[in-house]
Amino acid sequence: MARIWILGGGVIGMGWAVAYGAAGHAAVVIDPAPHASSALNEAWQAAQPTLIEMGLLGPQSVAPVHAADTNAAGLAPDLVQECLPEWLDIKHQVLASVEPLLPPAVLIASSSSGLSPDDIGTVLADPGRLVIAHPNNPPWIMPTVELCPSRNTEPARLDDLTVFYEAMGKSVIRMKKPILGHVVNRLQAALWREAIHLAAEGVVSLSETERAISEGLAPRWSLYGPSTVFHLAGGEGGMERFLEGLGPAFQSYFDDLGAPQLDRATCDLLVRGITDHDPRSTTDIMAERNRMVPRAFAAIAQLRNDAA
Amino acid sequence: MARIWILGGGVIGMGWAVAYGAAGHAAVVIDPAPHASSALNEAWQAAQPTLIEMGLLGPQSVAPVHAADTNAAGLAPDLVQECLPEWLDIKHQVLASVEPLLPPAVLIASSSSGLSPDDIGTVLADPGRLVIAHPNNPPWIMPTVELCPSRNTEPARLDDLTVFYEAMGKSVIRMKKPILGHVVNRLQAALWREAIHLAAEGVVSLSETERAISEGLAPRWSLYGPSTVFHLAGGEGGMERFLEGLGPAFQSYFDDLGAPQLDRATCDLLVRGITDHDPRSTTDIMAERNRMVPRAFAAIAQLRNDAA
Repeated sequence: MARIWILGGGVIGMGWAVAYGAAGHAAVVIDPAPHASSALNEAWQAAQPTLIEMGLLGPQSVAPVHAADTNAAGLAPDLVQECLPEWLDIKHQVLASVEPLLPPAVLIASSSSGLSPDDIGTVLADPGRLVIAHPNNPPWIMPTVELCPSRNTEPARLDDLTVFYEAMGKSVIRMKKPILGHVVNRLQAALWREAIHLAAEGVVSLSETERAISEGLAPRWSLYGPSTVFHLAGGEGGMERFLEGLGPAFQSYFDDLGAPQLDRATCDLLVRGITDHDPRSTTDIMAERNRMVPRAFAAIAQLRNDAA
Repeated sequence: MARIWILGGGVIGMGWAVAYGAAGHAAVVIDPAPHASSALNEAWQAAQPTLIEMGLLGPQSVAPVHAADTNAAGLAPDLVQECLPEWLDIKHQVLASVEPLLPPAVLIASSSSGLSPDDIGTVLADPGRLVIAHPNNPPWIMPTVELCPSRNTEPARLDDLTVFYEAMGKSVIRMKKPILGHVVNRLQAALWREAIHLAAEGVVSLSETERAISEGLAPRWSLYGPSTVFHLAGGEGGMERFLEGLGPAFQSYFDDLGAPQLDRATCDLLVRGITDHDPRSTTDIMAERNRMVPRAFAAIAQLRNDAA
C-alpha cells in the first residue's frame, strides 16, 4: 500500500482517488474547497457498482480521504499525483510549497494533458522528480496512463512508476520525450479531426462517422492497431508489400486529409451533429457508459487472453 | 436469393463471393485466369470454420461458382459487384462489355477504394447505375460497406442497395458524394498518419501506438465514437461545453499533428516497427485474426444489444 497525495479535487483528482482507493492505496485528496470532502465521498459511492463489476473492489480497497491542506494530510506520501487546474502559475505555486515536504525519492506525477513536464518542473529544487502521468478520463475506468519524463528525469525513476501503475492494471504508454498533447489525445485528435472534416464537407453526417468507427473499425482495432491491420493487408509480404502496393494511395489520402478549424460554424455543426446522433442527455449516456465501457474492456481483454 | 456477378477473382472478389454465398445469394465469380476456379473453392473452404463461428453458415448458404466469362455465367444478374484491378482503363473496358447484358434496373456496385464513381461510369450508357460499394477487407468478416452514388445516381436506387446489404448484416456507411479514399480509409489514414508521426519523431515506438489504440482507446470507441466521447467529456453541458473548455486545446493539437511522408526512411521505420511489435509471420497473425476479429465484433454487438 502506497500513500498518495492527490493535489486538487476536480474531476481528474476525484477519479484518480477512486482508482487508487480501489487498488488499495491510501489516497488523500488535498483541496481547500468547502465541498471537496462531500464531493469525494459522492464520487467514491457512485463508483461502487462499476468497481464491483470490474472486479476492482475487494478487501484491499480503502476509501480515499480528504484533507483541506498538506498539514491536515498527515505523513509524507510515497507519490504525489498533481491534478490542479491547467494553469502553469497555479501548478508552480502549489508545487513549490509542496516539494519541501517530500522525501527525496518521491515523484510528482502530473495529470496535465497539455503542459510540458519541463515547464511544470521549473520551480522545483529537483525538477527531475516531475513527470507526466496523464490518465484517460475517467481515470478509474480507462486503463491508459501516459508517462513522460522531464528532461531531468532518470529513466530508472520512470521504470518504478511504470511497475506501480501496471500493478494497478493500467496500460502504460511510455513516452521518450514530451510532445504537445501527449500520444493518446493526439491520436484521438487525428481521428476526430478527419471525422469533423468529412461532416463539414457534407460527405457524411457526424453520426455516420461515429458508426463507421464503432461498428466498422474499432472492434478490430481493439485487437490489432492500425499498423498491424495494414501489415496483414500486405499478405505474406506484410508491411513492406503493403507499402509497395498501397503506400502511394495512402500518401494521397494523407495529403488530402482535412484541416477544419473549430470556428463558430464548425462548433455549431458538431453540437447539432452529436445531438442528431444520440439525442439522450449526457447524464443518461454517461450512466450507460459507466456500465458498458468496463464490460467492453473486459470482453476484449478476455478475447486477447484466449488468443494468447 | 439474388444472382450476383462478381467481376474479378482477386482477394476482394473472392471475399465478396464468400460473403454473398454465406448469405444465400447465387454468386458467380467471373475471371478468365486458369487458377480462378480452384482459388475460389479454396477461399470458400478456408472460410468455413469462421463462417460457422460467426453464425453465418446455414441452410441458406450456397457455394459461389466460377465462370471464365459472361457467356459461361448464365442468366443476367440482379447485381454486379465489380472487383477488377484498380486501373480505370481495365474497369472501363470490362464494364462497357458487360453493361449491354444487364437489365435496366441492375446496379453495378464497384469495390474501388480509390476511384471516383463518376470516372468509372463514363463508359456506361446509364452512368447512374454505377455506384461505389467499397467493403473493408476481408469482406466476409468486416461489416462495413461504404455506399457512394455517382452524380447521376437516383437516391432511391441506393436505398434499395442499402436494404440489401443491411439484410446481409453489413454496416452501411451512406456517403452523400464522392471524396478521395471514401470515409473509412480516410479515418484509418488519419489515425495511422499520426501514429507514424509519433514514431518518426521518436516520441514512442510504433508498438506503443498500437497498444495505446488497442488497449486504451478502441474498446471505448467500439461503443462510443470520438465525437460521443468528447460530448460526454463536456459533462451535463455536452459538446458545447467541451468545445468551450477544450476546443482551444484540441485546435492546438489539430494544428500540431504531423504530416509524415512515406519515403524510404519512414517505410523502413514502419517495417522494423511492426516486426518489433509482433514478430510472428503475417500468416500466423492472419489465422489468429480470422478467428478473433469476428469474436470481437460479436462480443461488442452483444454488449450494444444489452445496453439498448
